[in-house]
Amino acid sequence: MVTIRDVARYAGVSVATVSRVLNNSALVSPDTRDAVMKAVTQLGYRPNANAQALATQVSDTIGVVVMDVSDPFFGALVKAVDGVAQANHKYVLVGNSYHEAEKERHAIEVLIRQRCNALIVHAKALSDQEMALFMEQVPGMVLINRILPGYEYRCVGLDNVSGALMATRMLIAQGHERIGYLSSSHGIDDDIQRRQGWAMALEEQGISARESWVARGTPDLQGGEAAMVELLGSNQQLSAIFAYNDSMAAGAMTALKDNGFHIPQQVSVIGFDDIPVARYTDPQLTTVRYPIASMARTATELALRGAAGTLDQSETHCFMPTLVRRHSVSPSQ
Amino acid sequence: MVTIRDVARYAGVSVATVSRVLNNSALVSPDTRDAVMKAVTQLGYRPNANAQALATQVSDTIGVVVMDVSDPFFGALVKAVDGVAQANHKYVLVGNSYHEAEKERHAIEVLIRQRCNALIVHAKALSDQEMALFMEQVPGMVLINRILPGYEYRCVGLDNVSGALMATRMLIAQGHERIGYLSSSHGIDDDIQRRQGWAMALEEQGISARESWVARGTPDLQGGEAAMVELLGSNQQLSAIFAYNDSMAAGAMTALKDNGFHIPQQVSVIGFDDIPVARYTDPQLTTVRYPIASMARTATELALRGAAGTLDQSETHCFMPTLVRRHSVSPSQ
Repeated sequence: MVTIRDVARYAGVSVATVSRVLNNSALVSPDTRDAVMKAVTQLGYRPNANAQALATQVSDTIGVVVMDVSDPFFGALVKAVDGVAQANHKYVLVGNSYHEAEKERHAIEVLIRQRCNALIVHAKALSDQEMALFMEQVPGMVLINRILPGYEYRCVGLDNVSGALMATRMLIAQGHERIGYLSSSHGIDDDIQRRQGWAMALEEQGISARESWVARGTPDLQGGEAAMVELLGSNQQLSAIFAYNDSMAAGAMTALKDNGFHIPQQVSVIGFDDIPVARYTDPQLTTVRYPIASMARTATELALRGAAGTLDQSETHCFMPTLVRRHSVSPSQ
Repeated sequence: MVTIRDVARYAGVSVATVSRVLNNSALVSPDTRDAVMKAVTQLGYRPNANAQALATQVSDTIGVVVMDVSDPFFGALVKAVDGVAQANHKYVLVGNSYHEAEKERHAIEVLIRQRCNALIVHAKALSDQEMALFMEQVPGMVLINRILPGYEYRCVGLDNVSGALMATRMLIAQGHERIGYLSSSHGIDDDIQRRQGWAMALEEQGISARESWVARGTPDLQGGEAAMVELLGSNQQLSAIFAYNDSMAAGAMTALKDNGFHIPQQVSVIGFDDIPVARYTDPQLTTVRYPIASMARTATELALRGAAGTLDQSETHCFMPTLVRRHSVSPSQ
């Protein structure tokens, strides 16, 4: 490996002079700068990013913590962060937390130790207190999909209750009264809020939201399939299903079709998120759009401004979901 | 921010002593070690990963370069790397290359500058010559889904031709003769090899693989839909479709159904990769399984061994695909 000493020897200058050139110091003559840059090119010297980060106390990486990068929702989040990062000549360091407090803490600590001065964090398992300590320590840390009291200006959230209200009211407007809810077994606030919206919409029509209309599963295809099988087994005579997310909705559709139900004629299904798969289920899935890419872009811009100390503390960032009407919902028969 | 100087002052020792303790040097008495660790805990000092990397010339991050982390195939790759990384107390730095030579080069260079001593790279746009220069420079760099002459022991590949042969022979065994191929517009070798396997299987039965049976699209749902629409428009009377990957196959199924074709009764469809979505199309997709998680795990273990200088240069790592029979293929009518 070529070192800074080799460059200095080749250029006939001191190591300190090479360092000044590489850090764009003004205290170098143009001739010396040319000699050093020629040596760098000739020898193929690569400045060490760790040494540069130490010297300037900033790194050129933006950190992102997500639950699971292989989930298409989080893939879309990371991709949107990466777009803003590239536009700012920064690089993205990704940590997976798998929805465990210990791994969330660890992922955040590792990114801080790597001196990422901008961090976009999706963490639902750690307590508010612990999150606040991290937020205090890193001015460029922004939370996505979580509103932390006292740090609202560095949080990007979605109004989950409104999204679930929209979805359930739409089913009710089509004449459905017995509407099931497929809940996420991760038990994060998103699930609590969506379930709350579902119950509110039913109750405003005088329908009681029964516990027996809810089944839980992991928030993926398999979990949706399993939860739907459970609801079918308990014979609740449901005519519509609101699912925690699109993956669960797609799994539920598979379980319904396997059991001879026609969608939407016999059972209507609505999801949440609008991941690309929602356009390719059969029938195409009616869903609630989660603007994750816009939210992730906003979060990244806030994180970069936070790192630069130019954040407006009076702003808040709560996004609204919208309804996407496709073909998995029809009037109750 | 608490510095190493604060820790030294608090513990009543020199900065050099704190550094020796943090780097697990043996030249420190147990009492001094305790005093320093107590100061570290009391003050909440976080050792700087950049400084540690500089001191030891290794970093605790493993670098991964993929085309697009939001693609479920690459999500599965990154997740598998992350599993091995966690087991080895390492962290994963991800770069997206979007299948452009310039971005591939840049992503690799950034990870090298971050002193990742283990790198798993999926790069198809850079030339063999340039890849060889990188491989020479970084002993812990391993290629996935590419075999680079001279570096076979650090490459993990898949026999794409065999996979495509299997898929097409299976369709032929079901009586199909007019079999279309949905090709990736990225034009990477995987596509060339899969197309080659498709043509070989047809030609071994005396059927000529016609250019007019091939349509191209981006290797995703939208691209598969568009390519299938193109084939339908040119009225080739195809009774079966082999798609470059599952996403394109799922897109093709949507286009076929939108045009009134029953799958598999009128048109059989087979994909490649076996991403989770393949189990949730309707009908469930018959496909060729790409063992990406096993391959990514092998690649990560090779990269760590490469970084440690313990690689066996006589080994090669070529994986075989397998056929997954579901419900999107039936005998020709």
